[in-house]
Amino acid sequence: MSGRLIGLGTGPGDPELLTVKAVKALAAADVVAHFAKAGRVGNARATVEGLLRPGAVELPLLYPVTTELPWQGEDYGAALAGFFAAAAAAVEGHLAAGRTVAVLSEGDPLFYGSYMHLHVRLAPRWPAEVIPGITAMSGCWSQAGLPLVQGDDVLTVLPGTLGEPELMRRLLDSPASVIMKVGRNLPRIRRALAATGKLDRAVYVERGTMARTVTTPLAAKPDDLAPYFSIVLVPGWEGRP
Amino acid sequence: MSGRLIGLGTGPGDPELLTVKAVKALAAADVVAHFAKAGRVGNARATVEGLLRPGAVELPLLYPVTTELPWQGEDYGAALAGFFAAAAAAVEGHLAAGRTVAVLSEGDPLFYGSYMHLHVRLAPRWPAEVIPGITAMSGCWSQAGLPLVQGDDVLTVLPGTLGEPELMRRLLDSPASVIMKVGRNLPRIRRALAATGKLDRAVYVERGTMARTVTTPLAAKPDDLAPYFSIVLVPGWEGRP
Repeated sequence: MSGRLIGLGTGPGDPELLTVKAVKALAAADVVAHFAKAGRVGNARATVEGLLRPGAVELPLLYPVTTELPWQGEDYGAALAGFFAAAAAAVEGHLAAGRTVAVLSEGDPLFYGSYMHLHVRLAPRWPAEVIPGITAMSGCWSQAGLPLVQGDDVLTVLPGTLGEPELMRRLLDSPASVIMKVGRNLPRIRRALAATGKLDRAVYVERGTMARTVTTPLAAKPDDLAPYFSIVLVPGWEGRP
Repeated sequence: MSGRLIGLGTGPGDPELLTVKAVKALAAADVVAHFAKAGRVGNARATVEGLLRPGAVELPLLYPVTTELPWQGEDYGAALAGFFAAAAAAVEGHLAAGRTVAVLSEGDPLFYGSYMHLHVRLAPRWPAEVIPGITAMSGCWSQAGLPLVQGDDVLTVLPGTLGEPELMRRLLDSPASVIMKVGRNLPRIRRALAATGKLDRAVYVERGTMARTVTTPLAAKPDDLAPYFSIVLVPGWEGRP
């Protein structure tokens, strides 16, 4: 019996947005691993509550506390690299014992997911399968009922961490955009949208498909308070019939 | 009892990649509508085979034959607009009779889906819900086991119908790209990738998650034969640890 790695997308938050394949894989996995901050239950783990095989081993992979290190600095990078190497080793221990390990990933595993760091380390050596998940952006535009792109529209997915000139340049160059990682970047994002004439089209979604979700035209949102996992959508399809 | 419209994403092709929510909605819908070409069973309808409520009414929405009209010409646009208006009227007839109508959509309904044309016509007048689906691109990079974007990567989704200079410009300007609608545009896409130094990173996927699927480095594909629904993936994450 050989170990098997599964990158399992848990979707945007609503448990009903898990795929049938993901539900079956969860019910069969010997080990369920999930990334989280110490003392917190991550969104991915919360989404699959009640779906694990009785007796399945849970393997929390706790991010190191790096908030005091400068972002993109050498120490920050080294701390993260060490963490992912240790996480991969912990998962590999179970694979070597012949177990199937499902690694939970919010949204889609290979789309900005932490699972990617395990995949590149382990997939060359172990049978690996990735079960795609509904992305957060897809959950958000569906909940908002907002047609995003059609026909020959170009879509650009932008991290909200980009600087204001770069955000503006890319917003101007694309008929449709999704801005991820909004959080405390919202004031800058709002300014870039206003300066490019796109603020009136922008829609803000917070905790998409989850409890206490918020959907509003960004221009109507009175403050700049936003959790990290909020999204701003700028729909294309200008030539709508 | 009031009519209800559901835009239902059927995902990339593998029936197990339907969401739990989509399966439940299919089992409850009075009417299941799906876009198709005359004489063909569309991918979306094929994906949900066996999942419809016994006795559910099927409503095929058959695209007009427009292949003889110049693309983006006035006649082409008029033929399509007339078709979508008629399709919306057919769906609305069922809504007015108090039925729940699920409109199938390959991939995700609001991401390049034909459903969008019904949504903008009917959602202002009827209760409407969109159930997101796994996008074709997500199915493709998962099947290929190809980490696509990480951290602050920008992702650009490009229609393969773009001209070569525009394809080149956008490929150069983005760390990661997905090229949709490949089909007979593949020779031009291949040239644009080669000219921008991205050919060696590009992965070609045909019929992702479906039977007889093909995954190969594009540089190793000996011909330029590709079905319309093939995809080219250019992964980012250059700074991979």
